[in-house]
Amino acid sequence: MITLSSDFGTPYPAAMKGVLLQRTDARLVDVAHDFPRQDVRTAAFWLREVLPYFPPATHLVVVDPGVGTDRDAIVVRAGDHMLVGPDNGVLLPTARRLAGDAGRLESYQIDEDGLDPVEPTTDQPEPNSHGQQHPPQDRSKTFHGRDVFSPAAATVHDVGVTNLESLAWLEPTTVDVDLELPIAILEDERAVGEVLAVDGFGNVITNVPGSALEGREQVRANGKPVPVGETFAAVPVGERLTTVGSHGYVELDVNQGRGDDAFGLEPGDRIVLEPVPGDDG
Amino acid sequence: MITLSSDFGTPYPAAMKGVLLQRTDARLVDVAHDFPRQDVRTAAFWLREVLPYFPPATHLVVVDPGVGTDRDAIVVRAGDHMLVGPDNGVLLPTARRLAGDAGRLESYQIDEDGLDPVEPTTDQPEPNSHGQQHPPQDRSKTFHGRDVFSPAAATVHDVGVTNLESLAWLEPTTVDVDLELPIAILEDERAVGEVLAVDGFGNVITNVPGSALEGREQVRANGKPVPVGETFAAVPVGERLTTVGSHGYVELDVNQGRGDDAFGLEPGDRIVLEPVPGDDG
Amino acid sequence: MITLSSDFGTPYPAAMKGVLLQRTDARLVDVAHDFPRQDVRTAAFWLREVLPYFPPATHLVVVDPGVGTDRDAIVVRAGDHMLVGPDNGVLLPTARRLAGDAGRLESYQIDEDGLDPVEPTTDQPEPNSHGQQHPPQDRSKTFHGRDVFSPAAATVHDVGVTNLESLAWLEPTTVDVDLELPIAILEDERAVGEVLAVDGFGNVITNVPGSALEGREQVRANGKPVPVGETFAAVPVGERLTTVGSHGYVELDVNQGRGDDAFGLEPGDRIVLEPVPGDDG
Repeated sequence: MITLSSDFGTPYPAAMKGVLLQRTDARLVDVAHDFPRQDVRTAAFWLREVLPYFPPATHLVVVDPGVGTDRDAIVVRAGDHMLVGPDNGVLLPTARRLAGDAGRLESYQIDEDGLDPVEPTTDQPEPNSHGQQHPPQDRSKTFHGRDVFSPAAATVHDVGVTNLESLAWLEPTTVDVDLELPIAILEDERAVGEVLAVDGFGNVITNVPGSALEGREQVRANGKPVPVGETFAAVPVGERLTTVGSHGYVELDVNQGRGDDAFGLEPGDRIVLEPVPGDDG
Repeated sequence: MITLSSDFGTPYPAAMKGVLLQRTDARLVDVAHDFPRQDVRTAAFWLREVLPYFPPATHLVVVDPGVGTDRDAIVVRAGDHMLVGPDNGVLLPTARRLAGDAGRLESYQIDEDGLDPVEPTTDQPEPNSHGQQHPPQDRSKTFHGRDVFSPAAATVHDVGVTNLESLAWLEPTTVDVDLELPIAILEDERAVGEVLAVDGFGNVITNVPGSALEGREQVRANGKPVPVGETFAAVPVGERLTTVGSHGYVELDVNQGRGDDAFGLEPGDRIVLEPVPGDDG
Repeated sequence: MITLSSDFGTPYPAAMKGVLLQRTDARLVDVAHDFPRQDVRTAAFWLREVLPYFPPATHLVVVDPGVGTDRDAIVVRAGDHMLVGPDNGVLLPTARRLAGDAGRLESYQIDEDGLDPVEPTTDQPEPNSHGQQHPPQDRSKTFHGRDVFSPAAATVHDVGVTNLESLAWLEPTTVDVDLELPIAILEDERAVGEVLAVDGFGNVITNVPGSALEGREQVRANGKPVPVGETFAAVPVGERLTTVGSHGYVELDVNQGRGDDAFGLEPGDRIVLEPVPGDDG
């Protein structure tokens, strides 16, 4: 099984699927292709929250603002999973989680020149009437998702997680760019954290562990009191609440509305959660 | 085969796919994940029009504004199909159609505690340097698509439509919330109906059966005459028309334009179709 | 393998998938369903750039502003591939490329009446309490993707590229509408071309072959000098550049920004590339 994640929108992921299906019979599963463009951190967050629900798989991830530069292309073995993508940190938070307690976490640099080149069907072996040939389709400098990561992913999938050493174009390496998602500071009854992401519903996802809400009926969020609910429906439609989201973190939400608008928060913003005086929890 | 429908956008459906693929080898087919958020009626309409084209399948449907409340999670057997989702009406119009003339229509309540719990891979068996553990991943209150409906769908798919009684966590029930999409009133040559949905092209889909246009060259729609066409191209580009849509209902459209803008109509609006004096049909 | 491409958005493609899966076990792969609506040329461009990366497959393509008119429904054999869609030109640029040097390029007209009719499950064999039957689901005039192209694609896929002659409802034909994407004029060191498409990143894709940038450090684009880069990162974030895109054509881009906004260009616009005086290449 190969999962695909990118910030490509359409139809570029289809070219990746074509290349994959030229080389493997693996099941292909789309994770998302609408990650915010060139936003490595947000993609890293979502992948860390979603990919651990998959059975062992090869995860092809292309959010790659540095495509064509000297950033490396890597394969990371994480337990029984493999991740394939750029060495810009996007794979690391997920890889650490997939490796788990007893798992192995190993990185390999891809030697692009060792991959069988990607070649589309073409119809212009001779120049056309204007004396033009179809542009030559060398390995692109701008679409490594198609020309580097897809052929690499197809091959590591078929070779299997225990046989990566057999591939001459993979060399053990240490990653150049690690990425740690920020961790909230918990002091006494106060939590100082950060907005990690806003989902499509407008729910504001922070990095404060849900335990910060335990036993509380309300909490001050950046100074203003907000009711704590177990479900969106704990408050009337259109009202604000804070709850523990499906990833285990504190969210700032609106029942059937947009929390980001109501709270005026976006990714990267600071969030301080404090007890409301008199709420004994 | 398991189909997936939701109002989740991305990447939440991928977490559902991960859970499904942990438990079943079924083919997964996305129907739509961009249904209007928390809009049970619109999803119910589209599913009723689309799912009957599928071969027997398990249909996982999560448009669930009441997630985490005491609304039940249900499985509905409808002929050779199964539907899995919340007991809020979203499944019923489709279920009635899938049950067909001779089919069976039976509902079962899911006992969530009988399901094998959903557990992601995790990497922090010990507290980290800040003394924090990764938030515990109990069954969420806000993402039953991942934690309840997906494991249920995988299991009912693999057990099969004729063996639902073998599952201890399914109990025959009657649904709490039925949902009937509104039916147009046809009187003599007048039809009084309602806009059910607007599609991505801007076509305004009503609940008036297409027969209301039979033999007519034009019709008055909310008082204004509109030509009747068999195809969009029956009128010039940019012009309004009324036609019988692919679901068999009267639509108010613009050839290569947006009918919702031209007619000023949205879902829930009333629509009256009357003969144009002198048009004998 | 059957690929699906359309301008349908959701959920119409799901109805097509249902029909396909009623009739074939083929793997289904989405290419894109968000092509600009009714824009035959843009879809033709993208399909020509993406589909040649696939292994031999049946490609179902529905961008069809003339649905229901007397435009033909066709199957095109192109080498080891088959394309199924309307005879409006959308298939031709891809077909010519897929046919390749030694490949066969043959077209067949679909006799719709020869196809097994598409029939959804229905639940209303008798009129309901209002004396209404569910609208009859004859072959629609407005959704040939579901009612004509999908059943045709399922069958030609299963019959195979070498047995199309065995199908009584296919008749050899010549296409009514060819479509040639415009070709840039290269004169000495000047290229006069056209914007073919803008991708989701805002990259402006022209029809000027990438060779026009060879050996140059900068170029005048519609009169203004722009640096030539091999990768987006050749210029600072937010700066304009021109580069050779992954399809081999000259693109006008902004590093981590939108080229269409920065250059004020959209599909169909004229683009003139000239040397900058003093840049000897």
